[in-house]
Amino acid sequence: RVWEAAVRALAAQLETQGEQHLAALHLLSVADTVGLSSAAGCILAQDILAQEPLPPFPASIKDGYAVRSHDGPGEYSVEVGALAGTAPGRLSPGYVAYIGTGGPLPEGADAVVQIEHTEQLPPEPSGRQRVRIVKAAKGPGDDVRAVGSDIKAGEVVLQRGDRLGAAEIGLLATVGAAKLQVGGRPRVGVLSTGNELVEPGVQQLAPGQIRDANRAMLAAAAQAAGALVVDLGIAGDEAGQVEAKFEETINSGVDVLLTTGGVSMGDKDFIKPLLERRGTVHFGKVRMKPGKPLTFATLEIPAAGGSTRPLLVFGLPGNPVSSIVTFTLVVLPALRKLAGWLDPSLRRVHARLAAPLKLDPERPEYHRATLHWERRLGMEEGAVGGELVAESTGGQISSRLLSMRSANALLELPQASGTLPAGTMVSALLIADLGMMPVAESVALTAQPAAS
Amino acid sequence: RVWEAAVRALAAQLETQGEQHLAALHLLSVADTVGLSSAAGCILAQDILAQEPLPPFPASIKDGYAVRSHDGPGEYSVEVGALAGTAPGRLSPGYVAYIGTGGPLPEGADAVVQIEHTEQLPPEPSGRQRVRIVKAAKGPGDDVRAVGSDIKAGEVVLQRGDRLGAAEIGLLATVGAAKLQVGGRPRVGVLSTGNELVEPGVQQLAPGQIRDANRAMLAAAAQAAGALVVDLGIAGDEAGQVEAKFEETINSGVDVLLTTGGVSMGDKDFIKPLLERRGTVHFGKVRMKPGKPLTFATLEIPAAGGSTRPLLVFGLPGNPVSSIVTFTLVVLPALRKLAGWLDPSLRRVHARLAAPLKLDPERPEYHRATLHWERRLGMEEGAVGGELVAESTGGQISSRLLSMRSANALLELPQASGTLPAGTMVSALLIADLGMMPVAESVALTAQPAAS
Ligand SMILES: [Mg+2]
Ligand SMILES: [Mg+2]
Repeated sequence: RVWEAAVRALAAQLETQGEQHLAALHLLSVADTVGLSSAAGCILAQDILAQEPLPPFPASIKDGYAVRSHDGPGEYSVEVGALAGTAPGRLSPGYVAYIGTGGPLPEGADAVVQIEHTEQLPPEPSGRQRVRIVKAAKGPGDDVRAVGSDIKAGEVVLQRGDRLGAAEIGLLATVGAAKLQVGGRPRVGVLSTGNELVEPGVQQLAPGQIRDANRAMLAAAAQAAGALVVDLGIAGDEAGQVEAKFEETINSGVDVLLTTGGVSMGDKDFIKPLLERRGTVHFGKVRMKPGKPLTFATLEIPAAGGSTRPLLVFGLPGNPVSSIVTFTLVVLPALRKLAGWLDPSLRRVHARLAAPLKLDPERPEYHRATLHWERRLGMEEGAVGGELVAESTGGQISSRLLSMRSANALLELPQASGTLPAGTMVSALLIADLGMMPVAESVALTAQPAAS
Repeated sequence: RVWEAAVRALAAQLETQGEQHLAALHLLSVADTVGLSSAAGCILAQDILAQEPLPPFPASIKDGYAVRSHDGPGEYSVEVGALAGTAPGRLSPGYVAYIGTGGPLPEGADAVVQIEHTEQLPPEPSGRQRVRIVKAAKGPGDDVRAVGSDIKAGEVVLQRGDRLGAAEIGLLATVGAAKLQVGGRPRVGVLSTGNELVEPGVQQLAPGQIRDANRAMLAAAAQAAGALVVDLGIAGDEAGQVEAKFEETINSGVDVLLTTGGVSMGDKDFIKPLLERRGTVHFGKVRMKPGKPLTFATLEIPAAGGSTRPLLVFGLPGNPVSSIVTFTLVVLPALRKLAGWLDPSLRRVHARLAAPLKLDPERPEYHRATLHWERRLGMEEGAVGGELVAESTGGQISSRLLSMRSANALLELPQASGTLPAGTMVSALLIADLGMMPVAESVALTAQPAAS
């Protein structure tokens, strides 16, 4: 199985490098204390425990009447006593008490009868309401949430490494965690290099010029990963300019520097020599397509009190596809790690090829594709099931950024000659939310189970 | 197939309501012009065309020498003439010219020979470099990107409805689209109701009190959907307080109002009567679990010049799980529609149940679960393929917000008695990015194809 071996070799290669550079990240301690309103999207850096039980009192599940369950059906006078937000009183014998959903059970009551199981009776001469319990509570605890039944006192409701989505924010609010420790936002500097580059806003290009796509793209990608981005602009192809930008970077206090361009074999590419002079280059070439000239280095920056702080430098290739693909495969996991993710790796799934795919005989390839969900071919009528289907985004030359448009996966293709036929299952790394994938025409809903 | 019919009925019910409320959204025109640096995450409200071709000049794919392809192998003098960012000169006959990756081909040259296929020779007495072409270009166009080969002039590079991720930002930068029309950010007011509620920051609860989880949770969820959130606080259970909050809401200029609580059958629940008095209630109860008391209404708010503007009101249930689930199923698609999504619906996939699931005989259920990717059981050694496996998040009572912790899907379960056995395939709506799903131990990579 030569092909599989080739792919495993690439995976191993990237993983080793991954370990290497993730190890370097332990040098950095980015962490933060935030309030609840700015915690969304962060990764927890602490466990969160509930101080009290939830509910903190026996609470009604329905709108209805708090009762003594052994009283059974019959006619009762109604006490007003268990409104939401009030301290519960005591239920007098022979009475029931009105109670709303979530309201605290009065002392003496042990169950709730929902309003639909009762009938309103004419009030007493005093004006006091009367009610007939038509269908009695089945027993103690009926339609009552016991103290601590949702959350026990002392229970760990969230753990270090949990990502704070909306529901998790709700849990934090529930337990009163108004200030919390989260993984911090790494500061990422983004620098483009190349005399050919001009700002995206330039409307009239001079001969030989192109607009700088990488900086805006990588800034957006880093920001989406939770980073604080410092725009370092464009450095021309003169050694002095790049060196000067390095000084600026170091002084700007960023944790991570992303450069694009200046890492291929040309005589005007100084990034790698500069990195070798100033720090340690961990790798400077990767057998992958796109992205071969990817470079990773760490620098020790003099800090206050004679100590040093680390600066991670990723020298990304200048071609826009290479730069965003290497960002996604190598920089993104690093940023996630800095932000506190326990497992920062891209998630792998499997998808069926919609069309044949030509392989590259020289390098394993990360082929950009759009996945969608489709009913499996040949499935029985009415059966439930589907699979991911991968459509290539077209021409994969690393200058053609359109190959990243709407891409939500990188297909992991082995280095080999020949063509994978349509229908082949391939492994794929998720690079965008499948919650935005194209929608298939009609997808079966859950059907009747075989047994019940 | 009674079960399937039941589920289809619910889907149809929600879809109809969806259409109804999505139709109401057409009344609102939220749109915006933004610069490139604030466009990430937005939905395009216009098509984007390239003004010029990319590359705008014939560009080298490699670092090497620009040549006349018919000159073939041999020894040549080197001109300096095709550095990145410079206007290309003319290649003199009998010469080659140094060229860097992305650099413009000089006039007269028609191919590139990469540096690895050449040998440096001793320079001429004048100091001019000389080089031996060892392996000649195969023909015109070799290692050259033709004008417009990545993007043609006039080509549509992005379309109305496209979501602007990092790659799309890069495409906008490439074509110089520095200002663009995007779907706007809907303004969403969030209001909690209930005398039992206190702020999340309160550390000591009085008897009968609980902390308000819904407001922070829904604010985070609406913000994640791109909305601008207005915190309207907590209204107590007095008609006057809720009415006053309504006035405040109307004056705050929000497009959408989310309330929680006050929609169940209790005598202190005024949201529905108030909405009926002030506008049109489109639905006030849905046969679903959780979320039965979900209410949707539209109000016409007097605006400047005697006209009116619409206000959409979603009355969400007070139980935190019900509120976030109904938000996700009904409000989120509405917010997406307002922000310009062409297909705002949640994406449906299929997953295998990891454990048996008891069904609800009274209502179709949206069961919270965490999906992960797993190798399919019984698969041949070395074969490539996997499937989504669904793990329930545990007790599903609508007060237990822990059932939403780490949930990335809502399983669509039919209304029925009995139990779905482990291994049943169920349909599921994606509610969080699968790029953060739990990672399975070991998942096969792309293997050798059957034919090549
Ligand atoms: Mg360059
Ligand atoms: Mg209430």
